[in-house]
Amino acid sequence: MPAVHKLLLEEALQDSPQTRSLLSVFEEDAGTLTDYTNQLLQSMQRVYGAQSEMALATEQLSKQLLEYEKQNFALGQGDVEVITILQDFAKAVEELNALHAELATMLANGMVFPMVTFREKDLTEISTLKDIFSIASDEHEASMVKYSRLPKKRENEKVKADVVAEVAYTRRKQHQASMQYYCAHNALQHRKRVAMLEPLLGYSQAQVNFFKKGVDLVSKKMDGFLSRASRTTQSIQAQLESETEDMRSSQRELLSVEDTVYTPTTTTTLSTALSYRRLATSTSGTKRA
Amino acid sequence: MPAVHKLLLEEALQDSPQTRSLLSVFEEDAGTLTDYTNQLLQSMQRVYGAQSEMALATEQLSKQLLEYEKQNFALGQGDVEVITILQDFAKAVEELNALHAELATMLANGMVFPMVTFREKDLTEISTLKDIFSIASDEHEASMVKYSRLPKKRENEKVKADVVAEVAYTRRKQHQASMQYYCAHNALQHRKRVAMLEPLLGYSQAQVNFFKKGVDLVSKKMDGFLSRASRTTQSIQAQLESETEDMRSSQRELLSVEDTVYTPTTTTTLSTALSYRRLATSTSGTKRA
Repeated sequence: MPAVHKLLLEEALQDSPQTRSLLSVFEEDAGTLTDYTNQLLQSMQRVYGAQSEMALATEQLSKQLLEYEKQNFALGQGDVEVITILQDFAKAVEELNALHAELATMLANGMVFPMVTFREKDLTEISTLKDIFSIASDEHEASMVKYSRLPKKRENEKVKADVVAEVAYTRRKQHQASMQYYCAHNALQHRKRVAMLEPLLGYSQAQVNFFKKGVDLVSKKMDGFLSRASRTTQSIQAQLESETEDMRSSQRELLSVEDTVYTPTTTTTLSTALSYRRLATSTSGTKRA
Repeated sequence: MPAVHKLLLEEALQDSPQTRSLLSVFEEDAGTLTDYTNQLLQSMQRVYGAQSEMALATEQLSKQLLEYEKQNFALGQGDVEVITILQDFAKAVEELNALHAELATMLANGMVFPMVTFREKDLTEISTLKDIFSIASDEHEASMVKYSRLPKKRENEKVKADVVAEVAYTRRKQHQASMQYYCAHNALQHRKRVAMLEPLLGYSQAQVNFFKKGVDLVSKKMDGFLSRASRTTQSIQAQLESETEDMRSSQRELLSVEDTVYTPTTTTTLSTALSYRRLATSTSGTKRA
């Protein structure tokens, strides 16, 4: 296979059917490239969107964890340990969140931006130059039509000279436009390859940076947190189990009583029970009857 | 400050206003906890959702990159190098995607699931036991009302015995229900601390695993890719620059001609130009006139 196909600028003036035909191959290629670029850009924007959302979600999680201590739990005591761990953890999540935000920014700058630029600059340039070339061709054609309709008579020498000048002018314009258009197509064949690789470089650099900083963060912060939090969890769990066992046995004991315990003895029991109920439903946690 | 407050099972039978009042403090605490749990769970589900979306987005990106070679570019030659790099890169992204998917699964199992379980099991249990306790209290009260309305007459000894038995039965039931309810509240004070820490352990373990495997992946795959792709990009860029320079100078040269080049000499020029145009617009890339 030959090296990259090229539109030869030398052919622009002659504008032969062969050159036009080769040009149409370049145009077809640019069309396919535009479609593919749009799809790839969508995938990249989706990755960026997911990463942004991850940064926002992580931020919300770390804020939500810090909300725990502000909850005004009616029974707050004993939570100091949990609160300290949550604060430490929220700090680690915040740092992780900074990494997520940095990754999102790097993806935007290093992956999405070059791809958008390629579309907006290179692909748009091709279509603009195509339009300019087409207008210049039309103008040249129109002047040629005028030229072919010139009367052969001598006395029209002045008119003829004007038309000839117009043909020369429009042909130069078309020549210029076609060479610019060819140049853009030739460049696009290189640019498209760079355009495919550049965002991937940006993506990879962002990921390498993210993982290298991340592994540092998790080994410094989370490993310590993990062992501390699992120690606390285990101790609470052990406490819970022993208490559950205690409660179960005292429940068994308290229920293994004679029915006499439940038998009413005086009628005051009712008024007592009812007044208790009224009090219980009307009092707050602090008011005691 | 004392250790964790506790509802004493021994107080359940007496069901005093003091105990009811302490119980209401526990109920208030459980209410606050339920609200907080729901918010925290939402934040966690958002993190999980973002991670899932990231896995899907990364998968789509790697597929989209592999689509490049299937695009039937009209000018495909010279792309072999780019295609090879894209394939390598897509493989690295696929592996990264596997890590993202694993992270999403670990977040689901280690963070969201324990939190959902806490809500569905512990918090729901509290509210179910509250209902059962309330029904048992109502039944006991109703039987006490019956008991208080018993006529004092001797001949009703049988009826009285029945009502007394009913009171004993409902009071035992209430006693049992209240002790279960107290037990659940006492346990919840421990469970809530575990419930806050467990998902964070799951989250941290998932992140540690993700970053440790990720840094391995990026240093093995992406570092190599990065240097290779940037070498290729630079060489294409250099090629492009030198060609652009060439094209620019030949464009200058080709345009620095006398107007005579553009001046029509015979009338055949028109028909030639027009027939070219017709051919160019009707021929495909393969057909040459």
